[in-house]
Amino acid sequence: MKILIKNAKILTMNNDETILENHSILIKKNRIQKIYPSIIEDESTYNKVVDAKNNLVMPGLINMHTHIPMTLLRNYADDLNLEDWLFNKIFPIEDKMEDEDIFFGTLLGCLEMLKSGTTTFLDMYFKSEIIAKAVKKAKIRAYIGKGFVNNNIENRIKENIDFFKNFNNKNNNLIKTIIAPHSVYTNDKESLKISNKMAQDTTKMMTIHLSESLNEVNNCIKLTNKTPFEFSDESRLFENVNTIVAHAVHLNKNDIKIIKKNNISLVHNPSSNLKISSGIMNVQKLLNEGINVTLGTDGAASNNTLDMFKEMHLASLISKGVFNNPTNLKAYDVLKMATTNAAKALNRENDLGKIKENYLADLIIININNINHTPSSNLINSLVYSTNGNDVILTMVNGNILYENGYFKDINEKSIIKKCNFLYNKLIKK
Amino acid sequence: MKILIKNAKILTMNNDETILENHSILIKKNRIQKIYPSIIEDESTYNKVVDAKNNLVMPGLINMHTHIPMTLLRNYADDLNLEDWLFNKIFPIEDKMEDEDIFFGTLLGCLEMLKSGTTTFLDMYFKSEIIAKAVKKAKIRAYIGKGFVNNNIENRIKENIDFFKNFNNKNNNLIKTIIAPHSVYTNDKESLKISNKMAQDTTKMMTIHLSESLNEVNNCIKLTNKTPFEFSDESRLFENVNTIVAHAVHLNKNDIKIIKKNNISLVHNPSSNLKISSGIMNVQKLLNEGINVTLGTDGAASNNTLDMFKEMHLASLISKGVFNNPTNLKAYDVLKMATTNAAKALNRENDLGKIKENYLADLIIININNINHTPSSNLINSLVYSTNGNDVILTMVNGNILYENGYFKDINEKSIIKKCNFLYNKLIKK
Repeated sequence: MKILIKNAKILTMNNDETILENHSILIKKNRIQKIYPSIIEDESTYNKVVDAKNNLVMPGLINMHTHIPMTLLRNYADDLNLEDWLFNKIFPIEDKMEDEDIFFGTLLGCLEMLKSGTTTFLDMYFKSEIIAKAVKKAKIRAYIGKGFVNNNIENRIKENIDFFKNFNNKNNNLIKTIIAPHSVYTNDKESLKISNKMAQDTTKMMTIHLSESLNEVNNCIKLTNKTPFEFSDESRLFENVNTIVAHAVHLNKNDIKIIKKNNISLVHNPSSNLKISSGIMNVQKLLNEGINVTLGTDGAASNNTLDMFKEMHLASLISKGVFNNPTNLKAYDVLKMATTNAAKALNRENDLGKIKENYLADLIIININNINHTPSSNLINSLVYSTNGNDVILTMVNGNILYENGYFKDINEKSIIKKCNFLYNKLIKK
Repeated sequence: MKILIKNAKILTMNNDETILENHSILIKKNRIQKIYPSIIEDESTYNKVVDAKNNLVMPGLINMHTHIPMTLLRNYADDLNLEDWLFNKIFPIEDKMEDEDIFFGTLLGCLEMLKSGTTTFLDMYFKSEIIAKAVKKAKIRAYIGKGFVNNNIENRIKENIDFFKNFNNKNNNLIKTIIAPHSVYTNDKESLKISNKMAQDTTKMMTIHLSESLNEVNNCIKLTNKTPFEFSDESRLFENVNTIVAHAVHLNKNDIKIIKKNNISLVHNPSSNLKISSGIMNVQKLLNEGINVTLGTDGAASNNTLDMFKEMHLASLISKGVFNNPTNLKAYDVLKMATTNAAKALNRENDLGKIKENYLADLIIININNINHTPSSNLINSLVYSTNGNDVILTMVNGNILYENGYFKDINEKSIIKKCNFLYNKLIKK
């Protein structure tokens, strides 16, 4: 399979802000084989030629924290206090979700992400085997974590090892498994130690929620005399594994030391943090400390979209407004969070997050010849401050064009929408 | 001219959150004549029938604070300190803007607003006659204020009275003029007094920037021993006129008293306030005080879009996140800010901001049968948290369909884009 994208502007994300003008990208199988100034050439040897017509090609976005099946619960519970939201709305309905709900909720989320320019996501939820099945159908790249808490830890170990054996590197290497203990308030010291062991025995990758709310931090200190990061560190959670921590809103100096010492990557989730009033991560300060910060949407039940362009815009604005410095989190730095920083967090600096020869062909084309990108004064700024997820006109994952000009290639969007509405209405009546 | 919109869900914004299912709206000339459950009827008597196919009809959004010609400066100057932004970038380039730049910048902004669901805007800028000309071409509803500072106040009076005489209620009543002194740091006591007199002599409407930044407030206190609101009140700026104050971020108890006493409406501009780090308005607190708060995008040079759906989303999220209460600024309250509260601020409670019989036919249709609105669990929440401006599929102002299914009726979008890029490139080379 050989695909040519021609006449494109290219934001490579390759170490600087350069935008290549009028370039072609040759994709062979699942990799970017060659990038060169567009020429008149014999196009008959390609399986498909996409004329980007001076639109913008950039790396696909990487959504580093989701609970993807919860897309089926979008707008089900908003504007509520955290306890109300979680205990009276979310937990009861999650209890009723069956395999079909998980499958179609995941598929709905995958389609939303593909449509708005996300090509890879990292997830934490239960029923991961069903999620993997839907991910396979969507053909998106995914890191799937099987969330777990204290109970029945022996079963959890078996399930995680089985999940790793059966799904890691499956589906043309699009699926990777990751160990996903939920948090310090649901997982005790023993459970965190075992999590580390499980990661060591599998992909050496881990994700967890830490220090999301002040309540969590204060309770942890009350119970253990340590912050969530300190408690996790003491439990040897981070030892010799690649850890990705979601939220990390409330950090003290020692937490920052622990993050640096263990090369932990953080995931900023601005919509969710604002909507649930968890607090606001000081991203610029953490970047200045040399910490690798990435970006995530969190679940649709607390967001309520999976559009990473919205998340980039919001991340930049609140970083300026809340920390009182309009030079905070410049546009290019936000783009890095959603591409190269994420690739680094995933240990994929050599094949993901850039438009570069030999890198995986995970890319998107954005229509920049429209009103909201006019005048075309500064494309980098425009991408963060003026782009809608709807401006994405093509999404390619692993060399496959999955979405183009408003349509999914192998999936009937209307029938998925219909099915999801049917399942949602059944679910809330249970 | 008789237009029928059938099979619609309707968010009327008429005092409660009710959504009418499967209703028809009959528009005659520029008014909503009748709203009734959709029936099979003889459609031959209508000039046009729009099948809303269970999409959502709601009142057009009202953008209460813009500097519309600055749309030509979108993404020209981002991520800068306020002084840098204003004195080194914005003021110098504004100085070079000619009539053609003002005209096409305005037209670009009008198209962007129409496309993303805004049907009325309130503007403050110079060269208002050119703005009015572009507004006439776009056929949008506009309140146009001729911004002015201290210098040559006699000329300013003449210009304002002339502008009122020549443009107020012109263009099928779509254009209204408004008196627009810039601020307390550019207008002295005398200038503010004269502003009030000008408003009395014209439309009795006024708009001004007040208490946008702490710097402004502190400087005003240093110079006058009063806050910007106190100083304006003492200058009798607000007396017997309908005042709309943009920003109003930093308020003390006495400011709030002054706002209530004078029935002043406020405009929240979340993107701009965050991006320039001016501070964040505590909207929920002001609403609880019974103050009428509306919503605006500010100019595209400090935003960088004029998409009111983005602004609604942001307003709700920061109100929750920054003031630490997830029940702050619920979805419906934000929708009110962008519709009925705005109509109230404009003294148009009886003909704008609602889908109601005898009201002006300013309405939009939103595609809700797409992924980001699935499942269709709660439409009110969905509109604020999950809608993109791009989901707007039809925009009607004053009974005219101006935009439908991606196309403007009488305007060639591509040629405006081309012209704006040309003018921008000429402008920055001057």
